[in-house]
Amino acid sequence: MTAPKKLILNLFEMNCVSHITHGLWRLPGNNRHRFNEIGYWTELAQLAEAGGFDAIFLADVIGAYDVFGDSAAAALEEGLQIPNNDPMLVVPAMAAVTKNLGFGVTFSTSYEPPFAFARRMSTLDHLTDGRVGWNVVTSYLPNAARNFGLDDQIPHDTRFEIAEEYLEVLYKLWEGSWEDDAVVIDRENNLYTDPSKVHRIDHVGTHFSVAGPHLSQPSRQRTPVLFFATASSAGIARAAKHAEVVFTGGTQVRRVAAEARAAAVENGRRPDDIAFLVQAGVITARTQAEVDVKLALYRDHASKRGRLVHASIPFDALAHPLDRTLGEALAIDGKSQHPAAATLPRDKTIAEFLALIDESWSGPFFSAGTPEKVADDIERWLDEEGIDGINLRQYHSFDTLKDFVELIVPVLRRRGRLRESYVDGQSLRDRLFGEGDRLPDRHVARSYRPVVVGSSD
Amino acid sequence: MTAPKKLILNLFEMNCVSHITHGLWRLPGNNRHRFNEIGYWTELAQLAEAGGFDAIFLADVIGAYDVFGDSAAAALEEGLQIPNNDPMLVVPAMAAVTKNLGFGVTFSTSYEPPFAFARRMSTLDHLTDGRVGWNVVTSYLPNAARNFGLDDQIPHDTRFEIAEEYLEVLYKLWEGSWEDDAVVIDRENNLYTDPSKVHRIDHVGTHFSVAGPHLSQPSRQRTPVLFFATASSAGIARAAKHAEVVFTGGTQVRRVAAEARAAAVENGRRPDDIAFLVQAGVITARTQAEVDVKLALYRDHASKRGRLVHASIPFDALAHPLDRTLGEALAIDGKSQHPAAATLPRDKTIAEFLALIDESWSGPFFSAGTPEKVADDIERWLDEEGIDGINLRQYHSFDTLKDFVELIVPVLRRRGRLRESYVDGQSLRDRLFGEGDRLPDRHVARSYRPVVVGSSD
Repeated sequence: MTAPKKLILNLFEMNCVSHITHGLWRLPGNNRHRFNEIGYWTELAQLAEAGGFDAIFLADVIGAYDVFGDSAAAALEEGLQIPNNDPMLVVPAMAAVTKNLGFGVTFSTSYEPPFAFARRMSTLDHLTDGRVGWNVVTSYLPNAARNFGLDDQIPHDTRFEIAEEYLEVLYKLWEGSWEDDAVVIDRENNLYTDPSKVHRIDHVGTHFSVAGPHLSQPSRQRTPVLFFATASSAGIARAAKHAEVVFTGGTQVRRVAAEARAAAVENGRRPDDIAFLVQAGVITARTQAEVDVKLALYRDHASKRGRLVHASIPFDALAHPLDRTLGEALAIDGKSQHPAAATLPRDKTIAEFLALIDESWSGPFFSAGTPEKVADDIERWLDEEGIDGINLRQYHSFDTLKDFVELIVPVLRRRGRLRESYVDGQSLRDRLFGEGDRLPDRHVARSYRPVVVGSSD
Repeated sequence: MTAPKKLILNLFEMNCVSHITHGLWRLPGNNRHRFNEIGYWTELAQLAEAGGFDAIFLADVIGAYDVFGDSAAAALEEGLQIPNNDPMLVVPAMAAVTKNLGFGVTFSTSYEPPFAFARRMSTLDHLTDGRVGWNVVTSYLPNAARNFGLDDQIPHDTRFEIAEEYLEVLYKLWEGSWEDDAVVIDRENNLYTDPSKVHRIDHVGTHFSVAGPHLSQPSRQRTPVLFFATASSAGIARAAKHAEVVFTGGTQVRRVAAEARAAAVENGRRPDDIAFLVQAGVITARTQAEVDVKLALYRDHASKRGRLVHASIPFDALAHPLDRTLGEALAIDGKSQHPAAATLPRDKTIAEFLALIDESWSGPFFSAGTPEKVADDIERWLDEEGIDGINLRQYHSFDTLKDFVELIVPVLRRRGRLRESYVDGQSLRDRLFGEGDRLPDRHVARSYRPVVVGSSD
C-alpha cells in the first residue's frame, strides 16, 4: 500500500488591496488595505509558517485594468490590483521572520533586462537560503506595454519567443557562469574566488546580448523553483520543457497535466518532474451553520463589477438587464467591434456570464463546509481530479488563512495528506521534489553548466 | 549662541565581500563573507539603529572591475565588489527588524526602465514607512554596459541626459500621478480610490515613453531622499537641481559644497537644502596603544593590488619597482595608449600613486585614536571642513560599527554633536531636514504635482 498523495499547500497573494475576491476587502476585520505595511507581510508569513504552508505565491501585474469602460476608473474604485506594489520586495521581510516558508514571485520576461533580474533572484535565493520560486509570465495587460515604452502589447508569439531567450540567458547566468567550487574563501592567500571557475556567458541572441559573468555567487538552489501558469497548448509545450510547478485553470487541470507530463517525457524529463496546482477556495468553520453565515456575508460583499473589470470586458454589463445576452448588450453599447469583445460568449446572458467568470464561489475547487467536509473535498481533488496542490484563495485576510491553519491543517495531517512538520532548513525545491536543492540534470537549465576541464565524467 | 552643528551619520556598505578596504575581509572575526546571509543584514541594521545612525548607505555596481589585467580575475580573487548581490532586496529584511534606521540604495538610471524602478522605490518607502533614500548614479563600468546589451559604455554626456529624463519620469510618477487625497478607503461605497484624483503621466520623451498611472499609491515621502555622488562641474549642476544629500570626494568637499549651494539658490532652493557627506574612516579603541595595534593589524591585511584593481588601472603596477614612474611602467608594459591610462598621473612613482589612491588610512577624513581624539577630529570636520555628515567606512564588520557605537557615539552626544535619540517614527527626510516627509515645494520634483481643480491657491 502506497502512502496517500500529500498536498502542496500555497497561499495565493498579491501586493494589493483586491486580488481576486473583489469587494471583500470591505469585510469587517479584513486587513487587505494594510498591504502597504511591512507588518501585514510579516504577520501573514508567520501565520502561514505556523500552519506548515509550502509557500506564499505572489501574483503581479505591471499595468492597470483599463479595458472596462476604456478607463482604469473602475479598477481604481475597486482597489482591483491597483494600487499595487512590487512583489519581490516583500519576500526579504517575510524571510526575516520565518525559516521554512517558501516564496513564489511573479515576474514578467517582457519588459526588464534579464541581467538585473538574474541578480535579484539570486539575491533572494541567498537571503532565503533556497526558499524562492519564480512564476514566469509574459504579461498581458495593454497598459503594461505602454508603461514600458511600447505602443501596444507585444504579440503573443513574440512574447513567448522573447521569454524563451530570456530563460536561456538566465540559465547561463544561474547554472553556467560560476562552477560549484568557484568560491574558496582562502584567507591566507587573499583568495575569495578562484577566477578560473567563473565564466562570462557572452550571450548574443535575437533579443539580448549579455556578457556576464553573473554577479552573484551560486545560491543554494541556483535556478529558483520554476512556476508557470498556463492552459494553452503553446503554454503546455513551454511548461513541459521548463516548468517544475504548473498553475492552471481549475476545469482543465486533468487535460493540461496529462499533456504536459507526456511532453515532459519527450524532453527527457519524468512525468512527476512537474507538479500541478489549481487555485482553490475554502470557507470553513466548526459547524455548517457558521459556514453558511460566513458564506452569506462574503457573497453579500462580493463585487460583480469587480469580476467584469478583472475579465477586461469592454463595456458595463451591469447597466443592462441580467437576462440580456452579451451580444445584444454589446450591440446596444456600440461595442460589438471592440477588440476586447472578440472572445466573449455572445449567446450567453449577462447572468450566465457572471456565473461563468466568478469561480470564487463555485467550480470544481471550491469547498464551503466543516473541516471534515473540506478535507473530504481536498482528498477528492488529489485522488480524482489529479491535482498535486492548491494556491489557496483569500476571501478575508487573515481569517481565510487562520481558519485553514486552525481547522483544516489538523484534519489533513490526521489523514496523512499534509506533512507533520517541516524538515528544518530544507530548500523549497527539495521539499517539493525530494531530489536536493538544484534542478535535476535532466532539466534543460542544467545543459548550460560549464564544461569542467579535468572532470572525470 | 547657536547649537553646534550635528553630524549626519551613515554606515557605508555594499552587498559584497570587499567594498573599499580591500584585503581586510580576511581579518579575524570579520563577517564580510556572510554578506549572502539575511542574518548579516539584520544584525548590522540592529547594531546601527542601537547606535542612532541615520542610515545605512548601500553602494552598488552592475558589472565587474575587469580593466586591471584586461580581466575580472583579480577582482574575483580579491572578492572586490564581485560576487555581489542586489542592494534593494536587503532593505526590507533590515526594515523588518528596525524602526527608525534609514536606508540609502544605489540604483543606476542607465539600464533599467523607470516605470519598474518607480514602483520598487515606492514599495520600499511604504514598507519602511518613509525611511528610504536613492543614490542616483549613471554607472561607469564598461562591463556593466555589456551586461545590458550595449557594446560599450554610454558616453558620459548621454548618460547624464538619460538620467535627467529618467528623473523627470520618476517625478511625474511619484509626485504627479496620485493626488494626496486619492485613496479614500470608503468601505460603504466600495471605493478604495477616487479615480478622478489619479492621473496618467503620458510621458513621451527622447529616451522614454511611459503612460502610467503610477501603480503604487503615494508613500510617506513620495520621492525618496535623493542622494548624488559627485565632484565634477556637470555633476554639481545636476546636484544643485536635484540632490538633497551630496556624497563627495574628501579633498574637494568645500569647493563642491560652495558651488552646489550657490547653484541651488539659482534654482530657487535654499543653500542648506543640500547636505554634504564624505566617506570617513575611524579606527578607535580605549587607549592609543590599542589603536596602534589595531591600525597595524588592519594595514597589514590591506591589499595594495585591491586598490589598483578598484582604480581600474590597466596594468599590474606591483610587478614594477615602487620607485618607477607610472609613465615608465606603462611604456614597459606596452600600455601607454590604453584608454584606461589616459588620466593616470604619469610623473608620479608607483609608491606615490598607491598613497594617492588609498584614502583608507590617511587623508582629511581619517581618524585613528582614542574616542576623545576622534570626536575632536569629527568636530573639526563639521566646523572647519564644512561637512554635514559622514558615510562611515568599514574596516571590519561588525567591529568598526560596534566601536563607533560604543566609544564614539557617547562622546559625540555629550558634546551635542549627535541627537540623543530618534524621534520615534520620523521619516528619513524629516530627520535630515526638519521640514516634513515630502520634498519642499521649491524642489523641481514638486513642479510635477497635478494641477488640482478647485484648489484655493
